[in-house]
This record gives sequence, C-alpha cells and structure tokens, in this order.
Amino acid sequence: MSSMRVPIIEKILDANDQVAAMNQQLLTSKKVYSINLMASPGAGKTSLILETIRVLREFSSKDACFLSLLRIGVIEGDTAPVTIDADKVLAVGMPAVQINTGGNCHLDAIMVRQGMEKLPLDQLDLVIVENVGNLVCPAAFKLGTHANVLIASIPEGDDKPYKYPNIYRNLDVLIVNKIDLLPYIPFDMDYFRQGVEILNPGLLTFPVSAKTGEGIHAWVSWLTQRVRDLKKNDR
Amino acid sequence: MSSMRVPIIEKILDANDQVAAMNQQLLTSKKVYSINLMASPGAGKTSLILETIRVLREFSSKDACFLSLLRIGVIEGDTAPVTIDADKVLAVGMPAVQINTGGNCHLDAIMVRQGMEKLPLDQLDLVIVENVGNLVCPAAFKLGTHANVLIASIPEGDDKPYKYPNIYRNLDVLIVNKIDLLPYIPFDMDYFRQGVEILNPGLLTFPVSAKTGEGIHAWVSWLTQRVRDLKKNDR
Repeated sequence: MSSMRVPIIEKILDANDQVAAMNQQLLTSKKVYSINLMASPGAGKTSLILETIRVLREFSSKDACFLSLLRIGVIEGDTAPVTIDADKVLAVGMPAVQINTGGNCHLDAIMVRQGMEKLPLDQLDLVIVENVGNLVCPAAFKLGTHANVLIASIPEGDDKPYKYPNIYRNLDVLIVNKIDLLPYIPFDMDYFRQGVEILNPGLLTFPVSAKTGEGIHAWVSWLTQRVRDLKKNDR
Repeated sequence: MSSMRVPIIEKILDANDQVAAMNQQLLTSKKVYSINLMASPGAGKTSLILETIRVLREFSSKDACFLSLLRIGVIEGDTAPVTIDADKVLAVGMPAVQINTGGNCHLDAIMVRQGMEKLPLDQLDLVIVENVGNLVCPAAFKLGTHANVLIASIPEGDDKPYKYPNIYRNLDVLIVNKIDLLPYIPFDMDYFRQGVEILNPGLLTFPVSAKTGEGIHAWVSWLTQRVRDLKKNDR
C-alpha cells in the first residue's frame, strides 16, 4: 500500500524517463544518433538545422561516400498546429514530422516516440528533435536523445545562464548563435562564459552564425564524428 | 456532491482567477494602474522598464507636477533565485520585489499578490509586473493587472505570432523592440503584422528601441494616460 502514497508528479516523471530510455535504446540499436535541440523562441533552431544540412551537403560534394552517411530526420515541436518549421525542412529534402503539443511548453518522451514512429529510422543516421522555444520547461523532461544541445543567441543578452540555470546544467553542447550581431549589441562574452562555467564546467561551445555560416563547419564536424562513433560502436 | 466531479485543473485555474480579480480590485481601489509585461527571454523587458523610468523623469523635468504623479513599483518574476533585474530597478531608485518561481515557467496571481504586499502600494501610481521570459506559459494565467503587454523582439524573427498564437490573443498592447537591429536582420514587418492582425485585430502596437530610445515617448505617453484615466475614474 505504501506505493499509493507516491505523489502523482513523480509517477509522471518516471513514466517519461522510462519512455526516454526506450527511445534511446531504439535509436542506438538502429545506429541513429539523436540530439535534443533547445532554445528561446527565435534563437535560430530551425535556421541552424537548415544550415547544418547545407554544410553536410557541401562536405559530401568533397567526399563521395558522405551523402549516404548522413541522412537526417527532424521532429519539430510546436505549441500550435503550424507547420512553418517542418515545411522548411521538407523543402530541403529531409523527412520531417511536426508535433503539436497543444499549448504545452515542452516536448516529452512520449511525443518524441510518436514522432520517431513516423520517421523512416532504418534509412536515417541522425534525428534532430527541435524542442518548443522555451528556456524553462524543456530542461525538466528527458526525451531519450543522445545529446542535449542549447542554442543561446547574442541578442538575448549575456545574463541568460544566470537567469535560466536549469537548462544549462544538463547540456552536452552549447551553440552561441547570431555572432554576426556582436558589433551592434552590448554582450559581455566573458560574463556570459563565466555564468556557463559555474553551471556546466568545460561545456563544449560553438560560436556560430547560422546567417553567415561562420563557425558552422566546426559544429557539423563534431556532429558527424558523433554519428560515426555511434556506428562504430557495436554494443 | 456534484462539485466533487470538477477536475482539479479547473479548480486551480478558478482559484488563480479569483485571486487575480482580488488583485485588480485592490490595485484599482488604490488607484494604482498595473501591467503584466511578457516576452521571450532577452526580448528586453527589464531594458524597457528602465527606459520607461528614464523617459518619465525626462517628462517630469518639463512638468513640475509630473514626478509626484508617476511612482513605479516593479515585481520581477524569475525562475531562479537571482536578483539581476530587481537590482537594476532598485539602482534607478524605484521599489522592486523579486519573486522566485522555483523553476516554474510563469507567474500566477498568488505570487503577484505576495509581491504586491511587499510594495508600498499607497505611494505608487503604477505597478509593472515583469513575467518570466516565456511565450507559452504566461498566456494561461491571469495576474489581475489592468493590461497585458507583450514585447516582441526583432531578432526573434517575424513568424512568432504564427508559432505562439495564444499569447497574442489576450494582449492589450504589443511593443516591438530592438527596431535598431532591422538593418542587420531579415524581418518582414508586413508578414509579422498580418500574423498579429489575425489573432488580435487592431492591436495597439508601439515599435521601439530600448537601446536608442526610439519610439519610447509614444509608449510612455500611452502609459501615463492610462494611469491618469484610472485616477480620474471615481468608481
């Protein structure tokens, strides 16, 4: 009877974590690397995905084996029934699934499971999950992806790690986007980095501009290496 | 007994709405106008508040009666126990209260009530509630303020009304901030305005730059007029 006393919120989180573990097991067994891409609204999640696809094609033009190596599926989380982001991904020829959270402020593992079931996983090397634009809610829900990636954006200001610490704590990679706007915006990079360092020491960070393409090669090189590592790993 | 069947979520919302109505009643009875200021992280909520205070002082230097007319209290909502924003308001000489939501993605009416109790309401003309940086959660919770104000930010992109429609539906005023960055960012103002118009026809909109001060006078004029209207109204 003691289990009856467990608060409901813990049961929900448990259920989510269990599905998240199943998601990762499925993705790993199919050798599909996956990332959970988080950010504020308008920080450049979809732009980064499109730029990543563009650079991967550029890489592939120099390496005949490359195009077949990296096929990307995208799961787009939105709070409303709009397909603006998913349409952009489809337009560049990659499979995309749109998930409407019905006003909810984050994706959860069950939604991602449903998205995965609509993607041709056997034909993919990488799944990018674009979470709802939000710096609070997504931090609390595991999706089962292999890496948590946050995009911080220069125009958001340099104090965001101090004000939204939870999302920085569980990151594997930080992308600092819109560095092309640095000349026009007061942004103290040292203050920003100090805030990140306190929460997540040594966090791998890529400063980029999805608009100009600056820094994208380093990010895409890291990503392709992770995809290759997963394929090599025979567990 | 039929009330026992009401789902818990409705009870919570009812309780919030009841406290919100009490908040508005208290504020109105004390002739304190109040706004609920919402936005994404880094859209410029605190910057707009500081710029509003600066312009009010500029106005007051031209009108000897003005300084005593507009005394502003600020309730700062944060998801973490940081006082960065509240400290900035205190530094310019206005009373500020910081509310830590404990990781929650929005303020609610009860938190605002607690904040109001720590402000010297009898000495104030205006209370600005700075909500948590979020385009999803704050839309669902009334606070009891007299007006809902959203700051959209140019670098967030022109598609935000389409992707976060709920927050646009219940607005009284829209502020479009960071217009000084328009030369450096692709932003289709017609597409943005069409998205807003569908959700909230005729919405009062102020394009501003909290950095350069452009457009701030029009916004502050509107705000002072609302404060004066509330004082004149003898209900």
